[in-house]
Amino acid sequence: MKFNVLTLFPEMFESILGTSMLAKAKEQELLSVDLIDIRDYTQNKHRQVDDYPYGGGAGMLLKPEPIFRAVDDLDYSKQTPIIFLTPQGETFNQAKAKELANYEELTLLCGHYEGVDQRVREELITDEISIGDYVLTGGELPAMVLIDAVARLIPGVLGSQESAVEDSFYQGLLDYPHYTRPRDYKGLEVPQVLLSGDHGRIEQWRRKKALENTLHKRPDLLKQADLSEQDQKLLAEIKQELEEE
Amino acid sequence: MKFNVLTLFPEMFESILGTSMLAKAKEQELLSVDLIDIRDYTQNKHRQVDDYPYGGGAGMLLKPEPIFRAVDDLDYSKQTPIIFLTPQGETFNQAKAKELANYEELTLLCGHYEGVDQRVREELITDEISIGDYVLTGGELPAMVLIDAVARLIPGVLGSQESAVEDSFYQGLLDYPHYTRPRDYKGLEVPQVLLSGDHGRIEQWRRKKALENTLHKRPDLLKQADLSEQDQKLLAEIKQELEEE
Repeated sequence: MKFNVLTLFPEMFESILGTSMLAKAKEQELLSVDLIDIRDYTQNKHRQVDDYPYGGGAGMLLKPEPIFRAVDDLDYSKQTPIIFLTPQGETFNQAKAKELANYEELTLLCGHYEGVDQRVREELITDEISIGDYVLTGGELPAMVLIDAVARLIPGVLGSQESAVEDSFYQGLLDYPHYTRPRDYKGLEVPQVLLSGDHGRIEQWRRKKALENTLHKRPDLLKQADLSEQDQKLLAEIKQELEEE
Repeated sequence: MKFNVLTLFPEMFESILGTSMLAKAKEQELLSVDLIDIRDYTQNKHRQVDDYPYGGGAGMLLKPEPIFRAVDDLDYSKQTPIIFLTPQGETFNQAKAKELANYEELTLLCGHYEGVDQRVREELITDEISIGDYVLTGGELPAMVLIDAVARLIPGVLGSQESAVEDSFYQGLLDYPHYTRPRDYKGLEVPQVLLSGDHGRIEQWRRKKALENTLHKRPDLLKQADLSEQDQKLLAEIKQELEEE
C-alpha cells in the first residue's frame, strides 16, 4: 500500500516512519510513504505557500496553485482518495480505517495555518477526515495517526499474536483488566481466578469485567454492541451488584 | 509547562518536538518535554519490559515494576495527573485540552503491546484518555497529539494571529469556506461577496456558510451550539433553500 503525503513539513514524519511497526512494514515493502513538500511546487522566488484571506480575518491560507500542481504531478494510475485532514471532517474511527485499508494508494493533504483555499477542497479533495474534536497545529500528526491505524490492518504487517490484540475493541466493548508477573508486587496481588487454570471461569471473569468497564466508562458503546444472552445475564448481575453496594 | 513522557520509544518524538510550534515553544522555555525511557528502569540483564498475561491469551503486557520505578523517580513537587493513553479511555476533546492546559506539569504513559498490568492503572494512573475510537500501534502518537493540542493553549505559545484561528471551533460550529489569491484559478472564482468590501455582508455570508456546513456534516454539533436569534433565522433560510432545490 502506498501513501502520498502532501505537507509543508516532511521532516516531521522522519522519526515516526523510521521506528517500530511502520519501519518494519516499509522494510518488508508492504508499505511505502512518499513525502511531498508542497513548497517544491511554488513558482515564486520566495517559495511562498500561503496568503491572506479574501474578505479579511485572522490567519493565513494555503494557496491553491502549489497544491493543484503537486496533485497533478502524482504518479498514480488509478483514481485514489485524496484526503484532507481537518477538524471539520468526518470523524475517523476503526470502521473508516478498515475501509481505507482496502485501497492500494491513498493521498493525504496536511493543512496548516487557518486552512486551505476552498477551491482545493471542492475540486481535489474526495474525503475530509478529523481524528477527533480538538485543534492541532497542522495536519501532520493526524496524517501519521491515519497511516498508523490503516497500515496495521494491511495483511502481513502485524504478526498473528499482535493482530489478536484488537479483538476486544472490534467486538465493541472496552477491554478487561490484564495482569502479568509478579503475582505480588508490594502487596498488590493478581486476582486468584487468573491463577486457577480454569479456562471457563477465566473467560467468564474477563467477559464480565469487560462489560463492567464498558458500562462504567462508555455506556454509549454498550448500546451498539452485539451482546449474547450470556452477556445480558452478566450485565444483569453487574447491575444487581451495583444496587447492593 | 512540563510534560514527562514514559515510553519505550523516546526516539519517536524527536522530529515532532524539533519542528514547528513545539520547537519554538521549547526555545522560548514555555514548554519542556522530558522523555523517559521505561527500559532504563528494568533491573534484569535483558532489560525486559513485557511479559505474558496471567490466565492466558494473546499479546504481551507491560510489566508493573519498571513503570512504578520510573514514576517514583519523577522529580515533581506537586501532585500532577498521570495520564495513560489508551483507546479504553475518556475521549479527548478541546474542552479536555483546555482543562489540562491549566496544569504546570503532566505525566503521560504510552502503552504498547496488549496493554499494561492492571496494578499500574489502579495505583498510578489518574486519567485514561483516548484520542479517538481507533486502534494504534502504541501510545506515542496519541501522546504527541495531546501535547500539541495542550501546548498551543499555553499563553504565549501562539501569536495573536494564530490564536484567533480557533474561534470557529470554539463556538461549536464548523468553519466557513476560505479563499485567497488568485481571484480566478483556471476558471475557479472567489465568491463575489468576499471581494465586495462590505464587512456586514461578508460576516453574514460566513456565518450562514458555517451553519450550512455544520448542518450538512455534523448536525450533532448544531444541537449543542449556542445559537443566536440571527443564527436561527439563517438556519431557517438554509432549510427553506434546501426544500426548494
